[in-house]
Order: sequence, then structure tokens, then C-alpha cells
Amino acid sequence: MSAPDGATSSVRGAGAAGAAKLADEVLAGRPRAIGRAITEIERGSELVPEILARLFPSTGRARIIGITGPPGAGKSTLVQRIAQAFRREGRTVGIVAVDPSSPFTGGAILGDRIRMAEIYTDPGVFIRSMATRGALGGLARATSDAVDVLDAAGYDTVLVETVGVGQDEVDVVRAADTVAVVLVPGLGDDIQAIKAGILEIADVFVVNKAERDGSDRAVAELAMMLDLSAHGEWRPPIVKTSATTGAGLPEAVAALEAHGKHLRGSAEGARRREQRARSRLLALLEARFRAAVETTAPEPDGLEEATHAIVARREDPYAAAARLFERVVSRAETVRRA
Amino acid sequence: MSAPDGATSSVRGAGAAGAAKLADEVLAGRPRAIGRAITEIERGSELVPEILARLFPSTGRARIIGITGPPGAGKSTLVQRIAQAFRREGRTVGIVAVDPSSPFTGGAILGDRIRMAEIYTDPGVFIRSMATRGALGGLARATSDAVDVLDAAGYDTVLVETVGVGQDEVDVVRAADTVAVVLVPGLGDDIQAIKAGILEIADVFVVNKAERDGSDRAVAELAMMLDLSAHGEWRPPIVKTSATTGAGLPEAVAALEAHGKHLRGSAEGARRREQRARSRLLALLEARFRAAVETTAPEPDGLEEATHAIVARREDPYAAAARLFERVVSRAETVRRA
Repeated sequence: MSAPDGATSSVRGAGAAGAAKLADEVLAGRPRAIGRAITEIERGSELVPEILARLFPSTGRARIIGITGPPGAGKSTLVQRIAQAFRREGRTVGIVAVDPSSPFTGGAILGDRIRMAEIYTDPGVFIRSMATRGALGGLARATSDAVDVLDAAGYDTVLVETVGVGQDEVDVVRAADTVAVVLVPGLGDDIQAIKAGILEIADVFVVNKAERDGSDRAVAELAMMLDLSAHGEWRPPIVKTSATTGAGLPEAVAALEAHGKHLRGSAEGARRREQRARSRLLALLEARFRAAVETTAPEPDGLEEATHAIVARREDPYAAAARLFERVVSRAETVRRA
Repeated sequence: MSAPDGATSSVRGAGAAGAAKLADEVLAGRPRAIGRAITEIERGSELVPEILARLFPSTGRARIIGITGPPGAGKSTLVQRIAQAFRREGRTVGIVAVDPSSPFTGGAILGDRIRMAEIYTDPGVFIRSMATRGALGGLARATSDAVDVLDAAGYDTVLVETVGVGQDEVDVVRAADTVAVVLVPGLGDDIQAIKAGILEIADVFVVNKAERDGSDRAVAELAMMLDLSAHGEWRPPIVKTSATTGAGLPEAVAALEAHGKHLRGSAEGARRREQRARSRLLALLEARFRAAVETTAPEPDGLEEATHAIVARREDPYAAAARLFERVVSRAETVRRA
């Protein structure tokens, strides 16, 4: 199979040297290299550790903003407007749109072009969708790595957009310094359940599509929930926006910036960076463990045999897991000592 | 702190003997015992492996149906209607409503009473919400265990309702024999992204709130996506319903039953049971590994030190994970040999 272009092919062929070259081009801010590095991340390629090792010392400079909320809240348009606001201040913007539900990779690029047409051709903006469903090591890991790539490439601000309200999206968005949760009026009965879950991750609430009936009620309900809940020094502000008309956008951007200032002036910023490093490390450890489990699969008494024992109800899942865990660990230890 | 009632307290106090007694009461179909067993699961209590070990040989008899879809699709009302249809045929029904976004546990019970008022007092129905956000070992594990409890307790059909479209919900709903995906007309732009992701998990599509504008278009779009996608022998039927009026409900139930018949008459049923056992085993293995990682945390060169090294950018996450993995494995092996 021939690679789509020569450069990608040479990255693969050259192994570690190719990874180093690609990383250097990312550090030089070359968009094609940035795109390729994110593709390697998306694919879970074995070059990723080497690429990241080289980029990592140059990370930690970008401001990372996560934007999440239920489907249909108008997040993409809002992200575009926020990016434009930062661009007017002369800041460059990297955007990672995480779409856990899409099984398509290449297709997402066409989607970006359409959804973010106004900023797509701006050289100070880099947009990338990641369709990481089923990706090795999961969504949160791939997103953190992609954010590092954009950070190392020198983008001043990185926006991470996720669709949804599940644990995956929460994990993804927790990689951000500041999290905006976008809601719209009248999303139905389940909205209360969503609100309960996102209260603890939101630094800023955006009630988008404010021209719709019920936006004042949505704001009032959120304010009431905040009154009833425990929050630290920072009480998440609630901003009404209309991403299509642009109403409320300056206030939304100001709220995001105010939270950034709060982080810099309090212990909260350091606490979050610590928490983020920890969960990233845990995710990578788990990926390594999964790989160790996979190697036992075809062995007698391995993963396959234990699976059959559960299906046949000869062994319950907890007992099978206890037995197999010992096996995986002793095997990994043998490999380590060899 | 005193336990809320004596029975729960004795379960805790007696350890293994208490777990066995509770399991026996579940096998006898006692609702209070069922509720308590699920509470232990929700809490990630250390009694769970013992309870499950005793219940497991009596599982595998219930028919398990998963019902998922975005917030606001009217899933709870639909679940209630489907349960009523099964009840009219004399079948008992257990319902697990998985609400990953709710941090409340006790509160969910009041919610059940309101949402499913028509069936809540039927002794042939057991309803339980699980608010497992942040639960040890995750949502999918807790749900599988709760389904086992209801299965072992003798419920003919177990309905698993999840809110959302993320990977978590997909994992939860994959524990079912048959998966119904519920959509509503006009949920906005992101609906296409949702559809792409759920195409592969849906055995039956339900377009609910069919009285709304756009329901025919939603059905036509789904049908077109099915035409364009690869599916096996079973092409997921699309059923229009109005859970509030009851229109289309018999057709929806018939579609679920037809899929159950298809599973019994093909290799697909066995394949799914195998896949389910495998992912359950993997989730339990990962939980064990996480526990092993946690024990290294306070040591020099343990989890905390590695986290600090990442924050300070002295070490990149992949390198730190590689180093710590060796440490965790050699430590677990030492414990095993001792």
C-alpha cells in the first residue's frame, strides 16, 4: 500500500529519526507536520512516545480552554466566534474538535471546513477534528497528546470542543485550564440530569441560542443550582449568547479570561495541572497493562480461556479476573527481568 | 455512624457470611435484598465479588434489552411502555436506569417513582436507578453486575436505560442482547454525528415523539444511512413511536422480539455473549491494576513523584508511564510470591 504522500511515508519508514524530524517540524510551527503528528496520535502509532518526548519540554505555554455540552447546543459556531475574538487580539488559536461518536477520520476534515468556514483559511488558526472512537488508549489520551502538539507548535490558545455529556467527554474536557459548558433552552427533561453532572466541571456556563424561548428560565435554573451547590472561591458565571448573531460573545470571552486570571492568581491552577498530569499518567499505565493482557490472549489459561469459562458459567468474572491478573503480572515481570 | 436499617448493617458486619445470605435472598427474589445488592455494587463494596460468585451460576436466563439515545428523546416513558407490554404477556421486568451524570444516589429513587409512576407499584417490576458517576471500576462494570443481580433474581426481561451517546453509554448498552436506539426529530446539527456513532450498536431504531414535525424525514435519513452502511444478516428496523399516546409501541416491542429470535437462530447471539464476557473481564482486570498502581502512590518514585516530574516537565508522560509500569508489575509480582 502506498502512502498518500511522500513525507508521511518517510516518517513511517525512518522510525525514531522520522519521529524526531516530525517533532522538529511541529516545533517550527509547520501546519502539515502538526496535522501529521495528530494523525499518528489518532492512529495510536508507535512513534507517538518519541514525538511527545521531543515536544514535551516545549509545552505548558498555551492557554487551554475546553468547550462541552449536549448535541445541538451550537458549540461549533460558538468555538468559531471565540477563536475570532482571540484572533482580533493577535493571539493564534489551535482547535481540537473531539468527536467520539464518529467512526470517520478523513471525513471529519471536510466537516471542519464547512462548520468553521469563516476561520478555516486563517493561517493563525489550526483546526483539527479527531474521530477517536475505538482508538487505542482512548479519547482522553489522544486529546491530551494533540493539545501538547498544538501547545508545542506555539499556538497561544488551544480550544478543545467535545460533543456530549458522558464520562469520556468529562475526562477530555478536564485536560483544559478552563471549561465552558454550553447549554440551550428547552433541551427536555433530561437536562436536569445533565446539569447535575456538569456543575462540577463548569468554570463558565454559556446559555447559547439565547433568542429562544426559555433562555431566561434556563439562566435562572442554573443560578439556583449554583446557589444550592458548594463551589470554591470561583463561582461560575452564566453568560447568554447567540453564536449566530454574535450577541453576548464579548461577555463569554471576558468570562473565560477572568477564569484564566483567577487560575494564575490562586492555588487552583497548580492543583489542576497536577490532577491532569496524574490522570494522564494513569491512562498511559492502563494502556500498557491492556497491552500486557493482550499478549496472554492466545495462551492456555489466557484471556481467551477465561472468557470461555465466563460464558460457560464455569467461573464468575471476578474469580476469572483475579486468576488472570496474577498470570499477566508474573508474565510481565518475567519479560522485564529477561 | 449507624446504618439506615438493621439488615444492611448485618450484611456489612458479617462479611462473607453476610454476602452469602444477601445472595441467597436475591436468588429467592426478595426486592429489598435485590436493592441492597445493587447498592453494594454501586458503592464498589468489597462484598461484591462474593455476592456475584454466588449469583453467577443462576444468571444467563433473562433477556437483556438496552435502550439508549440522546437526552430529551423520551427514553424513560418509552421504557415504561415497553415494560407494560411485557407485563401484559405475564413476563416480569427488571429495569436499571443508568444515569452517569447524576452525582446523587438516594435521590434517584424519588426520580424513578415520578418518572415511572404507572409501573412503580407493580410487584412484577423492579426499578432501580444507578448513579455511578465516579464509582470504582466504572459504569459498565456496575451495570453488568446489576443486570446479573436482576437476572439471578428471576426477572424474565431486564431493561437497561442509559442517557447519552458517549463511549461510556455505548459500553453500558453493549451488555445487552438487543439494543434500541431512541431518537427524536429535530435534535439539531450534531444529530448526524450521533447517528454515525450509534449505527453500529443499534439493533432497532425508535424515532420517538413521532407527532413532531420532521419525523418522516428522520426515518428517511436513518434508512438512507442504513442503505449506505454495512450490516450483517440483520438490518435494524426503524419504528416510529409516540410514547405518550402509545402509538407505534406494539411495533417497537415486536421489533425487539424479532431481534431476540434472530439472535437465538444465528451465531450472532453466541458471538455477543463472548464479546460481553471478554470486555467485562478486561474491565475487572483494569480495576485490579488500578488498585496495584494506587498502592505504589506514596513510595519514592511512585505515582506522586512521577506526577510531579510530569508537571515540572522533567519527564514526559510516556517515559514516566514506562518507568512506573515496571515498578508496579515487579511490586505486584513480589506480593504474589510472598
